[in-house]
Amino acid sequence: MTSISTLDVVASRAADSAAAFARTSPRDRADALVAVADALLDHADELIAIGADETGLAVARLTGELTRTAVQLRLFAETIVDGGYLDVRIDAADAGFVLGARPDIRRYLIPLGPVLNFAASNFPFAFSVAGGDTASALAAGCPVIVKAHPGHPRLSARTADVVAEALAGAGMPDGVFQLVEGEEAGVELLGHPLIAAGSFTGSLRAGRILADIATGRDAPIPFFGELGSVNPVFVTVDAITERGADIASGFATSVAGSAGQLCTKPGFVFVPIGHDLDAPIAAAVADVAEHRLLNPRITAGYVERRDAILSTAGVRIVAEGTVRVDDDGQGWVTPTIVSVGLSELEKAGDTLLDESFGPLSILVEYGTGTDLAAAAESLFDGSLTATIHIGDAEESSAVANLVEATTRLAGRVLFGGWPTGVAVTPAMQHGGPWPATTNDSGTSVGSAAIARFLRPVAYQGAPDRLLPEPLRNSNPWDVPQRVAAAGESPTWGENAR
Amino acid sequence: MTSISTLDVVASRAADSAAAFARTSPRDRADALVAVADALLDHADELIAIGADETGLAVARLTGELTRTAVQLRLFAETIVDGGYLDVRIDAADAGFVLGARPDIRRYLIPLGPVLNFAASNFPFAFSVAGGDTASALAAGCPVIVKAHPGHPRLSARTADVVAEALAGAGMPDGVFQLVEGEEAGVELLGHPLIAAGSFTGSLRAGRILADIATGRDAPIPFFGELGSVNPVFVTVDAITERGADIASGFATSVAGSAGQLCTKPGFVFVPIGHDLDAPIAAAVADVAEHRLLNPRITAGYVERRDAILSTAGVRIVAEGTVRVDDDGQGWVTPTIVSVGLSELEKAGDTLLDESFGPLSILVEYGTGTDLAAAAESLFDGSLTATIHIGDAEESSAVANLVEATTRLAGRVLFGGWPTGVAVTPAMQHGGPWPATTNDSGTSVGSAAIARFLRPVAYQGAPDRLLPEPLRNSNPWDVPQRVAAAGESPTWGENAR
Repeated sequence: MTSISTLDVVASRAADSAAAFARTSPRDRADALVAVADALLDHADELIAIGADETGLAVARLTGELTRTAVQLRLFAETIVDGGYLDVRIDAADAGFVLGARPDIRRYLIPLGPVLNFAASNFPFAFSVAGGDTASALAAGCPVIVKAHPGHPRLSARTADVVAEALAGAGMPDGVFQLVEGEEAGVELLGHPLIAAGSFTGSLRAGRILADIATGRDAPIPFFGELGSVNPVFVTVDAITERGADIASGFATSVAGSAGQLCTKPGFVFVPIGHDLDAPIAAAVADVAEHRLLNPRITAGYVERRDAILSTAGVRIVAEGTVRVDDDGQGWVTPTIVSVGLSELEKAGDTLLDESFGPLSILVEYGTGTDLAAAAESLFDGSLTATIHIGDAEESSAVANLVEATTRLAGRVLFGGWPTGVAVTPAMQHGGPWPATTNDSGTSVGSAAIARFLRPVAYQGAPDRLLPEPLRNSNPWDVPQRVAAAGESPTWGENAR
Repeated sequence: MTSISTLDVVASRAADSAAAFARTSPRDRADALVAVADALLDHADELIAIGADETGLAVARLTGELTRTAVQLRLFAETIVDGGYLDVRIDAADAGFVLGARPDIRRYLIPLGPVLNFAASNFPFAFSVAGGDTASALAAGCPVIVKAHPGHPRLSARTADVVAEALAGAGMPDGVFQLVEGEEAGVELLGHPLIAAGSFTGSLRAGRILADIATGRDAPIPFFGELGSVNPVFVTVDAITERGADIASGFATSVAGSAGQLCTKPGFVFVPIGHDLDAPIAAAVADVAEHRLLNPRITAGYVERRDAILSTAGVRIVAEGTVRVDDDGQGWVTPTIVSVGLSELEKAGDTLLDESFGPLSILVEYGTGTDLAAAAESLFDGSLTATIHIGDAEESSAVANLVEATTRLAGRVLFGGWPTGVAVTPAMQHGGPWPATTNDSGTSVGSAAIARFLRPVAYQGAPDRLLPEPLRNSNPWDVPQRVAAAGESPTWGENAR
């Protein structure tokens, strides 16, 4: 555990590095991110071995996750390298401005300052020490302090060494990357005046506590938490008719992957009564090997939720699955799939509707004429994703309404496919209305994640020599500059018609 | 006052209009914003007469402010009309994606839903019913409910009529614009589940209360408050030598305008000992006519702050100014300028450092060798602006440090000039670190203000026929679409060096 008495030093080291780090060019920071990616891959065998031992996740899965983590770092290098993310806007001085002469104004985005990232348990690489939050904050030019997740302490410490060494080797200032351990250290640091923003991936309960700390400070700071998501899926009769077998197997695979310990696991699948998927789903699930849960705390939560669901009136077992708990509280599981009628789900409320973190999912059987859009809106709070399975040529107002309802509900709407497996790309959105995230304007996956850690500043009437590089006329970093020319303002609004 | 029992109806009307409003094309909404601008100007004489009567602001000032309000609406029309603000990103499906085949993903920004705007007292047009928050939220496609400021109730009601009629005339859905009155109504609505975001311009005290309500809800919502700002100004010896007289007169004009009731009024001006500006400042201030304060509450606050400052040890009067309070508590004032030594300011702390809303400003006299950057950082919390007056050719590490320190402190850094008079342009930034604003990633002036009321949503693998217009291949709205082509991912990060 990091001693509380040392937190001032940690925060000060981060803050002291902030100005020098903010001054580094996007090209130099991009280079540093690539160096971190390369260093992680250079240590792949060692890191994956520690991770497998600490988390119970399969070596193949961890290998893929480490590759993804490296790709993520390279994506952020690509995102910043040309400086387009700085959103440079230049208003030319304009004597003919419609409200009277306007001065030269130049605006761009600067890093917020030290960011505290709370690592997640379920992705010991991609959402942990060197994960997306760290990569995007470093890309933005913010010093990062990671609060290690207790589920993989040795992996956290070793990853941190690799990251810090790679950053130093790439010439980044001392103090831009640090690791702390322990819940109390994380909570204390989040309240520290030198911390400028927080990010988090984890439970709704913990996330709410941290969000309240961040917003309740004397000087509140932004807090980007990814909390809970049930990821509803809606399947129409046409979809079942056209590809019922594919849906059954895709569903089983999506629930079983990583023992269902994914924020995008499909928690509810709406299927028409008479869907005939029980047998194929049960068969697909029967092939799934027992998988270790991440840790005893997650095991206890899963057992409790599973018991509550199995004992709820109207719940029928499709595939019972198994739960085996070691003497030390560590769980081993196979998927549990149940079904329930829509009206019984409505009656049961939160007992069924709350997230079950682990390999459990609920088929919701609906009758002919059911308004799925209305059901989606009345049953669910915000989710990271919502998925719609329709027939290839299906088109109706009911489908259009469902698209609109799921858009209100989620940050990502899928057509066909399954929500697990989040692409790391410019257009990805991994965030959604509360409680999916604390702040649905942000994403924690994809290149847009960098925007969370930037704020605008404008310079008015500044001598070129005193401007930051991206705003100068000489544009030494060669970044895109969007110029509002003099003389434009009298025509504003004329293009409206 | 709006009855609390009707607030459900108000919130539901806004929410019911949200889907239809979100579906309107940027071009149609731009047209509606221009129609609102035109309607306000058509009613200028009537509105300005009511405003002058209710607020005591001069007709010339209100005329300029109404023009500015119309220009602001036209700027937002211009901002949205081509759809660039939607930030459309399309990831082409890519079988060769570096982490395995990726699906087609399309992302853009959608409106948050109903926005509750708390109007300000000091700009009865530009930060009130039809002001920047309303214009930017409507531009984003969010229904707006304005909580009227009690300082100008008749103007608020009449403006709301004009706005609502113009929007209806432009074919916008019923319910996209509503007005409520009364503090309790505002507070209740901010907690209403159907409200998706809040915005506010006003005092730190009220803003903090509202921010805490917004973040403390069962489902927290974003709250964009512009609270308090002291806008420090730093003047070097060279600047005094080159243009001391200009600085004195510019300062007096900036403090006197609108009786100092501006969020960007320069509250502190750092001048070198021996500056010799007392006499020219006193002379300039002596010419300022008595001006009514906005209302009795502001009068009481101003009198209290002024008394406290005048009775603080070390404070010397440069121009005493006048304060006259009517029997009904309404104040009439001329500017008060005082000076104090830097070390006495440090000793006095918040007694002097807190904002004085009204025409009072403090000259801070510093000695040779003073580290102004360090003083700026140790004395001040966040501000909307910071201003630097240097010599024309002045260049030193002290100046560079001051630029860096003021950048950390403020959202807009000015060189020469004065912070009052905020241009309405693409590059403007009107927002800064706490307590200037609750959320320094946003601006409440300039076209970037629209970003506060948008959130991203991504569609994965969607049939073209079910996509929103901006994301379709056929691109019926002809918006800019940024495409990440297949095959790019293996090269990510290769440009870093």
